[in-house]
Amino acid sequence: MPVLKTHQQPIGIFDSGLGGLTVAKAVLKLLPNEDIVYFGDTARVPYGTKSKDSIIRFSLQNADVLLEHKVKAIVVACNSSSSYALPALKRHVNVPVLGVIGPGVRKALAMTRSGRVGVVATPATVKSGAYQKQLLKQRPTCMIQAQACPLFVPLVEEGWFDRGVTVSVAQEYLRPIQRAKVDTLILGCTHYPLLKQTLKSILGPDVFLVDSAQEVALELQGLLAREGLLNASRHKAKNLFLVSDGPDHFRKLAGKFLGREIVLKKKSF
Amino acid sequence: MPVLKTHQQPIGIFDSGLGGLTVAKAVLKLLPNEDIVYFGDTARVPYGTKSKDSIIRFSLQNADVLLEHKVKAIVVACNSSSSYALPALKRHVNVPVLGVIGPGVRKALAMTRSGRVGVVATPATVKSGAYQKQLLKQRPTCMIQAQACPLFVPLVEEGWFDRGVTVSVAQEYLRPIQRAKVDTLILGCTHYPLLKQTLKSILGPDVFLVDSAQEVALELQGLLAREGLLNASRHKAKNLFLVSDGPDHFRKLAGKFLGREIVLKKKSF
Repeated sequence: MPVLKTHQQPIGIFDSGLGGLTVAKAVLKLLPNEDIVYFGDTARVPYGTKSKDSIIRFSLQNADVLLEHKVKAIVVACNSSSSYALPALKRHVNVPVLGVIGPGVRKALAMTRSGRVGVVATPATVKSGAYQKQLLKQRPTCMIQAQACPLFVPLVEEGWFDRGVTVSVAQEYLRPIQRAKVDTLILGCTHYPLLKQTLKSILGPDVFLVDSAQEVALELQGLLAREGLLNASRHKAKNLFLVSDGPDHFRKLAGKFLGREIVLKKKSF
Repeated sequence: MPVLKTHQQPIGIFDSGLGGLTVAKAVLKLLPNEDIVYFGDTARVPYGTKSKDSIIRFSLQNADVLLEHKVKAIVVACNSSSSYALPALKRHVNVPVLGVIGPGVRKALAMTRSGRVGVVATPATVKSGAYQKQLLKQRPTCMIQAQACPLFVPLVEEGWFDRGVTVSVAQEYLRPIQRAKVDTLILGCTHYPLLKQTLKSILGPDVFLVDSAQEVALELQGLLAREGLLNASRHKAKNLFLVSDGPDHFRKLAGKFLGREIVLKKKSF
């Protein structure tokens, strides 16, 4: 096998499970020349209800899996990992690392007119304060209402995107968001874009929903360009998907997420 | 430290998380002379949506944690593990192993008058067919209706035992159970007893709910007696609780489950 030049190496993406496929899809669309290696830690999903220490430990192990595949950059497509593990990851690896918090924050601040921003996320992400700190750092006057929504991930994994039950749960979680009269809501978990229609139906047309997948892909493109790591060669891109649990459930849903067949392998710790 | 005689060694109990505390509580009550070591694999919870291979691998690792603490017997207080991993566990360890499926089945068959039995459980437990096979083995003429309820565990972990949303989810899941006109329903997951009131309000007073914790404790007592392993010495029993994720959430809920203070340590893999 020929030795790849650095810019020809694949992009690594990891998530606790399936949710990061929304990010993978945006990356594949924007950067069709790039090979990607995706790792979903489906044996330990979810992360958003686990502790900081566990999330950091899992994230470093996931990065090691990607580095075994000689990735040139790592996208942390999991909000809980991005919230807690980004500094540890940057110390741990010698390739650029991009999380999902920064891109979501920048998009929200570009969209809000009132400066009143809502965040819905997992308990871990909310508790970390990562979105709140980033928002205030970039705009110290903005008003933030954050809300943990622990049932959203299991509802999405069950495929109940718009059932009556899901609407009831969402109404309950969104009450503080509505009271705060935000005009922009960050979907701070990669599963949540699948509930977009339900959230829209409750919040109405005047609240802009920030789905950071597209923003992450754009920032990744900028990062690779700055580092001279963009793969300009025209070739048929190769994509590899790895999961730590059995591949059946992932394969079925990944097809729906991505709209294409994938090469999927199991990687146990 | 004096060397313990075998019958003085502790009983080991493991679960994917908190749910097994219902079993631990029943064991502590029935066998107050016994020391116990409980391990909750909270870093990888839940098991019920994971694959057979992962559940077996996790279960063997959990047994090893308990064996480090020189347990004289192992109670598998997790239905998903009991469904898939019992044969592998029995080959792997040299102490008696007791699961939760057998005791629940025996209780259900003792209670049913019509021979029509329902099972609610996680997707893994239902898919394994463990309850269905055991019920049919012991009563080949019984009619079984099994139903996977993947949202029950997250609802319990959220503490939403009897909210409107929980009632709606339960009504949806219980529809096939009601159509099957069962007179006995096995709660095939150690989290579900916390939803007992909600399930009772939907099914009415004529359906008996089997909560296997008490049955497991009784069978454990019989097993230890047969093997000469009962601890007859009057002493202040020592209990140790281990978790693989951070201990805060577990400590808070364990107090509610058990109604007592516990000694809790973290044990990472």
